[in-house]
Amino acid sequence: MKKPLLAAFAATALLASLPAAAQFAKPEDAIKYRKSAMFLMNTHVGRIGAMVNGRVPFDAKSVADNAEFTTIVSKLPFAAFVEGTDKGDTKAKPEVWAEADKFRTAASTMQDEMAKLNAAAKTGNQDAIKAQFGKLGQSCKACHDHFRKD
Amino acid sequence: MKKPLLAAFAATALLASLPAAAQFAKPEDAIKYRKSAMFLMNTHVGRIGAMVNGRVPFDAKSVADNAEFTTIVSKLPFAAFVEGTDKGDTKAKPEVWAEADKFRTAASTMQDEMAKLNAAAKTGNQDAIKAQFGKLGQSCKACHDHFRKD
Repeated sequence: MKKPLLAAFAATALLASLPAAAQFAKPEDAIKYRKSAMFLMNTHVGRIGAMVNGRVPFDAKSVADNAEFTTIVSKLPFAAFVEGTDKGDTKAKPEVWAEADKFRTAASTMQDEMAKLNAAAKTGNQDAIKAQFGKLGQSCKACHDHFRKD
Repeated sequence: MKKPLLAAFAATALLASLPAAAQFAKPEDAIKYRKSAMFLMNTHVGRIGAMVNGRVPFDAKSVADNAEFTTIVSKLPFAAFVEGTDKGDTKAKPEVWAEADKFRTAASTMQDEMAKLNAAAKTGNQDAIKAQFGKLGQSCKACHDHFRKD
């Protein structure tokens, strides 16, 4: 119980480094996994968005809790974009694999922006949270625009 | 980054305590959310299972990492079994709502068994991990047998 959260980040980095074959029995499982992780991210970051945009009252603890969890989950989806998972129930464009370096960079940018939002959330500074939420949103959009089908 | 993992548990407890209406815009979102969380749990606990059952070599760090993450996610699905989400793309039986106390107890039992597996995983003791993995599996099965359609 005393393990710092940093260890959890290390954990997900490790998981991401495992061979794909060891992680997913079937291509469908990899697709379902990344979609599940993305949906949890979207849900929890959306709760921050609702506060940033004034749809629900600002609650510093809720922002921090949601940012913490989303930061952990932001590490997960990308290990699941393995070869052979470009077909099926997925909106991933062929560019994910054809421009793999660019995709990795886009994912990494999002993770960095998310980590910065997590840091801002811990301060409770609403202006900083709002500004960083905007930057995170730009990184999501940039990646989705290029690598995800409409 | 120094926030202890215990805080992450507190975070998910808080999330679970928010009013359902504040959490999910539509019943479908709640269903998708709990299924996403369950799928991530299943995937990561399955990686432990593969080691416990000897299908892949035992790796104490991988067991610990997967147990840590699964423990966090094990707190999430149950806030999403809100009223009005018994229909649609779900295998949840009416008993989830008709026997809500029993369902909560079953969920809590699973979370306790998962936390114990996480504790065992930190010791790296294979016998203890294997024994506790069995208990966790029983708690999953007991709940699924009663509350989930085949």
